[in-house]
Amino acid sequence: MDLGVSDKVRPLIAQVRAMVETDIAPLDAEFHAEVGKHPSGDRFKHTDRQLEILNKLKALARERGLWNFWLTGSDRGYGLSTVEYAYLAEEMGKVSIAAEVFNCNAPDTGNMEVLERYGTQAHKDRWLGRLLEGEIRSAYVMTEPGIASSDAAQLSFEARRDGDDWVLNGEKWWISGAGDPRCGLYIVMACSDPDAPKHQRHTMFVLDPDTPGIEVLRPMQVFGQDDAPHGHMHLRFTDVRIGADAIVLGEGRGFEVAQGRLGPGRIHHCMRAIGQAEKALELMCTRGLEREAFGKPLVELGANYDIIADARMEIEMARLLCLKAAWMMDTAGVRAAQPWISQIKVVAPLMAGRVIDEAIQMHGAAGISQDFNLAHMWTHVRTLRFADGPDAVHRRQVARAELRKYADQ
Amino acid sequence: MDLGVSDKVRPLIAQVRAMVETDIAPLDAEFHAEVGKHPSGDRFKHTDRQLEILNKLKALARERGLWNFWLTGSDRGYGLSTVEYAYLAEEMGKVSIAAEVFNCNAPDTGNMEVLERYGTQAHKDRWLGRLLEGEIRSAYVMTEPGIASSDAAQLSFEARRDGDDWVLNGEKWWISGAGDPRCGLYIVMACSDPDAPKHQRHTMFVLDPDTPGIEVLRPMQVFGQDDAPHGHMHLRFTDVRIGADAIVLGEGRGFEVAQGRLGPGRIHHCMRAIGQAEKALELMCTRGLEREAFGKPLVELGANYDIIADARMEIEMARLLCLKAAWMMDTAGVRAAQPWISQIKVVAPLMAGRVIDEAIQMHGAAGISQDFNLAHMWTHVRTLRFADGPDAVHRRQVARAELRKYADQ
Amino acid sequence: MDLGVSDKVRPLIAQVRAMVETDIAPLDAEFHAEVGKHPSGDRFKHTDRQLEILNKLKALARERGLWNFWLTGSDRGYGLSTVEYAYLAEEMGKVSIAAEVFNCNAPDTGNMEVLERYGTQAHKDRWLGRLLEGEIRSAYVMTEPGIASSDAAQLSFEARRDGDDWVLNGEKWWISGAGDPRCGLYIVMACSDPDAPKHQRHTMFVLDPDTPGIEVLRPMQVFGQDDAPHGHMHLRFTDVRIGADAIVLGEGRGFEVAQGRLGPGRIHHCMRAIGQAEKALELMCTRGLEREAFGKPLVELGANYDIIADARMEIEMARLLCLKAAWMMDTAGVRAAQPWISQIKVVAPLMAGRVIDEAIQMHGAAGISQDFNLAHMWTHVRTLRFADGPDAVHRRQVARAELRKYADQ
Amino acid sequence: MDLGVSDKVRPLIAQVRAMVETDIAPLDAEFHAEVGKHPSGDRFKHTDRQLEILNKLKALARERGLWNFWLTGSDRGYGLSTVEYAYLAEEMGKVSIAAEVFNCNAPDTGNMEVLERYGTQAHKDRWLGRLLEGEIRSAYVMTEPGIASSDAAQLSFEARRDGDDWVLNGEKWWISGAGDPRCGLYIVMACSDPDAPKHQRHTMFVLDPDTPGIEVLRPMQVFGQDDAPHGHMHLRFTDVRIGADAIVLGEGRGFEVAQGRLGPGRIHHCMRAIGQAEKALELMCTRGLEREAFGKPLVELGANYDIIADARMEIEMARLLCLKAAWMMDTAGVRAAQPWISQIKVVAPLMAGRVIDEAIQMHGAAGISQDFNLAHMWTHVRTLRFADGPDAVHRRQVARAELRKYADQ
Repeated sequence: MDLGVSDKVRPLIAQVRAMVETDIAPLDAEFHAEVGKHPSGDRFKHTDRQLEILNKLKALARERGLWNFWLTGSDRGYGLSTVEYAYLAEEMGKVSIAAEVFNCNAPDTGNMEVLERYGTQAHKDRWLGRLLEGEIRSAYVMTEPGIASSDAAQLSFEARRDGDDWVLNGEKWWISGAGDPRCGLYIVMACSDPDAPKHQRHTMFVLDPDTPGIEVLRPMQVFGQDDAPHGHMHLRFTDVRIGADAIVLGEGRGFEVAQGRLGPGRIHHCMRAIGQAEKALELMCTRGLEREAFGKPLVELGANYDIIADARMEIEMARLLCLKAAWMMDTAGVRAAQPWISQIKVVAPLMAGRVIDEAIQMHGAAGISQDFNLAHMWTHVRTLRFADGPDAVHRRQVARAELRKYADQ
Repeated sequence: MDLGVSDKVRPLIAQVRAMVETDIAPLDAEFHAEVGKHPSGDRFKHTDRQLEILNKLKALARERGLWNFWLTGSDRGYGLSTVEYAYLAEEMGKVSIAAEVFNCNAPDTGNMEVLERYGTQAHKDRWLGRLLEGEIRSAYVMTEPGIASSDAAQLSFEARRDGDDWVLNGEKWWISGAGDPRCGLYIVMACSDPDAPKHQRHTMFVLDPDTPGIEVLRPMQVFGQDDAPHGHMHLRFTDVRIGADAIVLGEGRGFEVAQGRLGPGRIHHCMRAIGQAEKALELMCTRGLEREAFGKPLVELGANYDIIADARMEIEMARLLCLKAAWMMDTAGVRAAQPWISQIKVVAPLMAGRVIDEAIQMHGAAGISQDFNLAHMWTHVRTLRFADGPDAVHRRQVARAELRKYADQ
Repeated sequence: MDLGVSDKVRPLIAQVRAMVETDIAPLDAEFHAEVGKHPSGDRFKHTDRQLEILNKLKALARERGLWNFWLTGSDRGYGLSTVEYAYLAEEMGKVSIAAEVFNCNAPDTGNMEVLERYGTQAHKDRWLGRLLEGEIRSAYVMTEPGIASSDAAQLSFEARRDGDDWVLNGEKWWISGAGDPRCGLYIVMACSDPDAPKHQRHTMFVLDPDTPGIEVLRPMQVFGQDDAPHGHMHLRFTDVRIGADAIVLGEGRGFEVAQGRLGPGRIHHCMRAIGQAEKALELMCTRGLEREAFGKPLVELGANYDIIADARMEIEMARLLCLKAAWMMDTAGVRAAQPWISQIKVVAPLMAGRVIDEAIQMHGAAGISQDFNLAHMWTHVRTLRFADGPDAVHRRQVARAELRKYADQ
Repeated sequence: MDLGVSDKVRPLIAQVRAMVETDIAPLDAEFHAEVGKHPSGDRFKHTDRQLEILNKLKALARERGLWNFWLTGSDRGYGLSTVEYAYLAEEMGKVSIAAEVFNCNAPDTGNMEVLERYGTQAHKDRWLGRLLEGEIRSAYVMTEPGIASSDAAQLSFEARRDGDDWVLNGEKWWISGAGDPRCGLYIVMACSDPDAPKHQRHTMFVLDPDTPGIEVLRPMQVFGQDDAPHGHMHLRFTDVRIGADAIVLGEGRGFEVAQGRLGPGRIHHCMRAIGQAEKALELMCTRGLEREAFGKPLVELGANYDIIADARMEIEMARLLCLKAAWMMDTAGVRAAQPWISQIKVVAPLMAGRVIDEAIQMHGAAGISQDFNLAHMWTHVRTLRFADGPDAVHRRQVARAELRKYADQ
């Protein structure tokens, strides 16, 4: 169980880390400061400067060959293992736009995986190439208002067959990336047969965001922020008509596609969350060493040594667990790795949330302000406690896996 | 130690609760939806509708005699005890604009207290009456960038004597309410003699916000939100000249004023935080009863019963501790009550944060969205862990009070 | 809601505290050091010195009129309220034999309550007087091996009618006090009709411990200790024959008796646990002030200030919650007080456990040794997390009470 | 960073696990039940049956070649790495006498390491061989009453030079294993020059336990238990005279020896604690599946799924962290591994304590009784929070290592 840095990935880590620190970090704040400055007043349009920043950085990454690392276990891309990729994802997590710069950002990586694994040749021709090139972006259209997503079998957004076509109706929300004008693909999970057995009710479709009948109702807000121009949109589909060739894998096989998609994505989120926790610990230490009160650096006051030690221990453990889950995926496959993926999915966001919260506290009010990235990091990792399944569902999976050991006896 | 609802306050609680639920809550969302819609595009101007909402509700409160409850232990106002007021403040905490409607909002109550206790007759004539009438609002100008406020003796914003006048120079930030166009008073703590003994270096001044030389640099953001039009402003003072009659209590007595101000204010914050926790628990229960997964209401899944029980227990205990701190203030004075005030200042925001966080989790992604008030409640109570002294400083106070018991022996 | 020290109880607190500190504490260690020194080698026999200590102290308490305080809301005894008694019980909790000295110890108080409320005149004549005088002790015989007591309806120890008599068969364990040679009464819950509705299956009986057919199988150990000579015994009943006059309240009414018994007892346990936490905090502070490392008193190292502050806050809150539960019992009755009793039953032992654990840690290895009472205090409060219902059952009660508020709507 | 099971150790794990389950576990309870049954009444003498059990099992282990695994990185023994040994130690942790059966028990392994690394040839000839053969046992004589061991430089037990000899005076306590009649070696840390620089004040001596002048004052109790016949003894040395050849490594080099000794020992303790946590989780699951309440297995009630899941996640993380610390020791040496050793020293006992505590709660009162090993496991892991340095000291080490990263810049 080699969880360490391989010789292959070591130089890549150095290059990615250097590029994140030197090239991306300085432009990240500028990118975010531009939000809402499009002449039209539309927050969901990039300013010229934003596009310039993104395109310049992406070109630089491609030029340096730092691109599409996420294509693990594949002969395309680098052929990294998930363990190797983990170390890179951690670095990318430290700055918010970094993952996109290396074409390793959610939800695109998961969506590309869907096309690669389950898409038809036509789907690949139309979307996969452009996604791999970073020319378009994409959205995964699953969550519905009014339904507890923890029990996805309840999803009721309708796909009704009409002759050779299918007609989609209903609302979806929290569709991340659907605000981005560059979004060129929706992967939509719809209920095609409510009377079928629980896991055969749904079908996965691929379609263009500008298919007639799709309406953006509003951006959803994350603790008051709309994350423009990426956005988490609330959509309404009204008689959206698509051909049967829009089906991925097969009618009634939506759950199968969704399951295959989620394993790696969950791990990637966790890897980046660990990177954020590392960044937060760094900020906690440097702030605590610089700032003084009562004639001493803050780190020497109160319980701060213990807080720093606990943060270090929690990060170390979460990283090791994440690497083990990655190693299980590499060696035993997604299905066997499931309990470990559930474990890290619970552990990493909670851990990162605690570490970032303590880093905030060490900064005083500055910690929740626009002057540091901590508040944004915190709200982001908080969303991970729902995204791809709430903690409660993952804990249940872990417990069931544990109890099965004894039921078998 | 009567911590219960007195006969005097019982009908007031009922009236305040009813008005919050019936009259204020329905307009609260509308008030917030209007933010940023002023024709000038200036987020720090009220729209006509916002003013209409506020003025109508305030008039209604005055008409009903529900006004200035916070004037505890006084023959002005109701002459409520702090314990009695606590029950009212809890109700006001449940809706964000409610405290202002009853003229019981921070930072005005603390500022009025400063004027009442320490102000000259001229100060009272100029500002106190209008504040008591709810005609103007005010700001308390203390926190500085670059200084750990936990050790307030470090504050270095300069007050330099120049003939009969004083000249103020420096920056202040997180000045809550300084964004509100109705803000008519600044109470400013400044370092008037850096060489004096630690607690005699600072002087408190009162002045008009439009005194020449004061500049609003920017609104500070709380987890990305500017809380417009109230705002938490970053200010720069450049050669702001004021007369010696602007001094409150006396030169070098700024700390004394600050200490006298903080006791009740800290308790009021905690009371409202407890109201928010109650509201969050209510939302947690109703959501958990209504929403289903796996064929059961959410409350019956996983650890939800335990989560609800823990929330109830934590709220009960925090409320009782808050009432005891209030009772100590009523019966033994602010100074003797200090360890209990520090205790509740640590306990209440942490408790409310946990309860709100669990309420969010029960709502899934909706919990962090604009569709519920939970995200806003959470960010608000998070700020209370710094406001009026960070947790670490209050824990230190509690521990020192504890250890003094043995040192005396 | 007066939760304070009344004028009536104030002098009693002072007397009890003084007697605990001056008279009882110095003999407590000696009492325990005598365990196992009976010439017969029988750990469940008192040595002469033990009886001398107990009898002398009890005589002193009676002489001073410090006796049977627990008879709350009664014209016998002091007629204290439960709130008033709480303050006394807290003092008694600080030294292990203190409660018995004042004839306020479990399980006798609960058992006397059963006789008082539900017993026949014959029961009272035979046992109640001698218990009130402290002449005999008693045991409550409920828990069974092989049954999760959290669901008491499962208890299957058999009471079979045979003519006019009843015949008892089965095993009971964790029968506290059944090791004491002075134990003169068993109150036994038995299943008299397994086919009856869930809460009418059981009947409560009173009988002499030396009734033929009762056998002590072994003492149960609490973390390796047998708590001799009090003991927590494992008993076997084989064809134990008793008359119908041994029934308390009525056939099939065992649950009713058990419920009535448990309310006050649970609160008394919590009050004493709070006293233990106070004692532990005192030890934590004095040790931390006296002992040095790295040139400083321990309290000034690491997170110790925070640990002390948290302990103080937790104790304050638990005490207030306990007093509120007591006040509810006094003013609204056991049934209405139930959710608060469940709350404090969860809160107090957990809180006391945490505080004692930190006190242990401040003492280093001495903390778990025979040189301090901390280890014994810890194991005792740990047992309270099962005694009279495990935490999980009480949390469930609290949650159900909370949710009922909304179900009614 | 290969943290997995190597091909070399895989069959050993299987053999050790099988022997622990099949041969040792069934005799463990019998061994403990014999304590105190020596005809002399001396609890610190083995009964014949106890010696028979130990000797038979040790012979079996030797016969199977399962012996002295702890000799890591050595050409004696198996030449296992610390990572490989970790997996074996975990298995040994599951039953209390197992480590001794394989000659891998504390404090002997650490003491053998001292002799091996720092002892003279004469020391080795006299003691090392017999320890490696399991013929004698040994004690490490360091902790003193009246001194906070967290700051070992304070240790004041005196070694005074007298001609060519040294004379030892003072008290030591918590000397584990000094109760065992087979104990044939004391390694004693003594203050030989109180005026020397802090880390050169102490010297390490080796001597026979029956050297004149050594007196056993009493056994220390761990939560009321004396752990006889192993014992944790309180010793007094009165003018104990030994030759200069009793010095290990050199005068004033006691700290050096102590540091070298502690690294591996701390990890071994943690490994075994993880084994205990695994055992506790197994008991928690099997009990929760077998026992019913309210018509369901306990695991399906309340928060039990979450409790099981959290236990699994915590164990996984602690094991990985322990393996990483072991790997650091293997690849970078004890000194470089220090921060990770401190991390796992804090993490593992706390984690195991929580898991065992929850296992206890799932068992109800049975969990703290003699019928399960949980209570004993709990008290044992609780002692680990002081043994080899209290948590606070290790947290401080971790924080300092973290902050040094920034100080270097």
